[in-house]
Amino acid sequence: MTRLRFEVLARDDRTAARRGRVTLPRGTVDTPAFMPVGTAGSVKAMTPEELAGMNTQILLANTYHLYLRPGHELIGRLGGLNRFMHWDGPILTDSGGFQAFSLGDLSDVTDAGVVFKSHLDGTKHTFTPEKVVEIQVALGSDIAMVLDDCVSYPADEQRVVESVRRTTAWAARCLKARGERRIALFAIAQGGTLARLRLESAATLTGLPFDGFAIGGLSVGEPKPEMWAMTEVTVPLLPEEKPRYLMGVGTPVDLLEGIERGIDMFDCVLPSRTARNGLLFTSRGKLVIKHARYQRDDRPLDESCSCYTCRNYSRAYLRHLYQAREILASRLNTWHNLHFYQHLMARARQAIVFGRFVEFKRDFCETFHAGLQ
Amino acid sequence: MTRLRFEVLARDDRTAARRGRVTLPRGTVDTPAFMPVGTAGSVKAMTPEELAGMNTQILLANTYHLYLRPGHELIGRLGGLNRFMHWDGPILTDSGGFQAFSLGDLSDVTDAGVVFKSHLDGTKHTFTPEKVVEIQVALGSDIAMVLDDCVSYPADEQRVVESVRRTTAWAARCLKARGERRIALFAIAQGGTLARLRLESAATLTGLPFDGFAIGGLSVGEPKPEMWAMTEVTVPLLPEEKPRYLMGVGTPVDLLEGIERGIDMFDCVLPSRTARNGLLFTSRGKLVIKHARYQRDDRPLDESCSCYTCRNYSRAYLRHLYQAREILASRLNTWHNLHFYQHLMARARQAIVFGRFVEFKRDFCETFHAGLQ
Repeated sequence: MTRLRFEVLARDDRTAARRGRVTLPRGTVDTPAFMPVGTAGSVKAMTPEELAGMNTQILLANTYHLYLRPGHELIGRLGGLNRFMHWDGPILTDSGGFQAFSLGDLSDVTDAGVVFKSHLDGTKHTFTPEKVVEIQVALGSDIAMVLDDCVSYPADEQRVVESVRRTTAWAARCLKARGERRIALFAIAQGGTLARLRLESAATLTGLPFDGFAIGGLSVGEPKPEMWAMTEVTVPLLPEEKPRYLMGVGTPVDLLEGIERGIDMFDCVLPSRTARNGLLFTSRGKLVIKHARYQRDDRPLDESCSCYTCRNYSRAYLRHLYQAREILASRLNTWHNLHFYQHLMARARQAIVFGRFVEFKRDFCETFHAGLQ
Repeated sequence: MTRLRFEVLARDDRTAARRGRVTLPRGTVDTPAFMPVGTAGSVKAMTPEELAGMNTQILLANTYHLYLRPGHELIGRLGGLNRFMHWDGPILTDSGGFQAFSLGDLSDVTDAGVVFKSHLDGTKHTFTPEKVVEIQVALGSDIAMVLDDCVSYPADEQRVVESVRRTTAWAARCLKARGERRIALFAIAQGGTLARLRLESAATLTGLPFDGFAIGGLSVGEPKPEMWAMTEVTVPLLPEEKPRYLMGVGTPVDLLEGIERGIDMFDCVLPSRTARNGLLFTSRGKLVIKHARYQRDDRPLDESCSCYTCRNYSRAYLRHLYQAREILASRLNTWHNLHFYQHLMARARQAIVFGRFVEFKRDFCETFHAGLQ
């Protein structure tokens, strides 16, 4: 029974970057891949066809949100999340742990699991390793994530030690709970910003037969150099033949930094959330659409972009929509930002294949930091 | 110079219904036609391609809103409203009068024009007949509407007499201001709910060479029988060879009632506004998507509907999106309601051609009032 197959198709000579392909029951995913976030069973403002049209191959959905509303049992009864949200491709679900920690009113974390209160109605719920696997199975994910014990930044060593120990124990319980079912399961390496504990977490988890490995607990407020240092500490311990996923990252430049360090998968709400707030990514950096300078600007957001928004609408119109709080503003802005991300990933994959990833990254960053004209 | 050509292609034997075609600089419009409302240069939540895909042939845009934000001069400088909002087809703009009366803080209405304060920032503005023509010319509309003196319901006779007199005078001034420019101009018949004044308004206005005639001042709170009585009084006075437009109407059944009385064009925010509020129109009447009965309902909104929403999403998913306040809820709901309206109009046109409009209307209303299963 194949849950997940991973092939490395090309490696960069000068960095740890690699171009690969993940094969899952519902389709293949070219890596390095960016996964748009469909929090509550919808990538906000977008249809699945629009996402597929910009070469999105896998979506991330949040177990915490779907568990609370409309409920994993309901989704399961209706044929699973794919059918529910009309998305044919692979879906990765997180374990819900991170949101239980960050959104839920946390009342108790013990070796048994996480007790939290819903941010929606204050009701009390428990996530155990077994429970989050059950939820993700009901949702019908292609890739499930283990429940992990997240620590905030900064955290004292004692707490990080506990997090690493507990995360390993929970990961093993998730693996057992998954059993023979045809759903890939990724472990999540923790360890805060302590190299010793990062090494310990990765070393222990990779001793278990997971289908892939994620680096968690980063992008939670620590300085960027610490984030990359922890990534660099962890990646060499992760098996070559399995996909590596850096959770919750990041900006366009972060994606290239991660790829350079051997990361295969990313997810982040950044491009979609900032789009709704009027912050657009362009090849020449960030553009804040509400600025008066765009009032009469007849140019597209990014003259080198071929997305639906850039092909058909001016900055002046997009500014107007944003100022008038039109729903179409969220749509067109999200469309552009997600397209920008997917196009960036496609170019990165191509650059790796052609042995010029270093040059591609350098050129991209140079133009990106040059700023808008 | 042809601004507008109107042909009657078929007439119903038993009612005043007619199937026609309006030819405008930017395209043709099959009538009876429903015009979705793109208040601020966007039919809320929809792209122009989506509207065209459901056979929308003409949009209505609000002069009042566009004049205040982003400004007609800006839109004119950027090549007109069509280019600004990426809509290739015909556009009808209202005169702004109705919104100035209903949204603006009205400070003065004299024979000179309307003085009002912006609902956005309280600034003082004046709409004169000449000004609203100038604005609509700058927007680049295919069909402009005259400034009319709207009365609220109920209104005393004295006020209605004044409104009719002023509306005629303003209409003549609009015609003069339009001059030789290639933009069709429709007059608006007023008269409140007084048959004598409705007759007077229609008789006077039709003496002037307008390209079409609208019935205004209805659907403002008066009982439905009064609305239809006023329509029946007015229509016979309007020229056979020009399009007739009933402003701000209405429900699906209202459209058929209007068509039966010889109306060719309609506009209304109802299908799009109610969609955003979770009220959907189906062949079996209204459906309130938030109701708990739809929580596990795997059926489409309307099993006889072929819109994008009904082809791909269940009531259960649409309920979830609505409860979670997802932007996609507004999109999918609006898509369905507007498609429902356009499909209704297409069927009505066909029924007229095949001489069975009466049966079509009877069957539609019977099913519509039967309610949901």
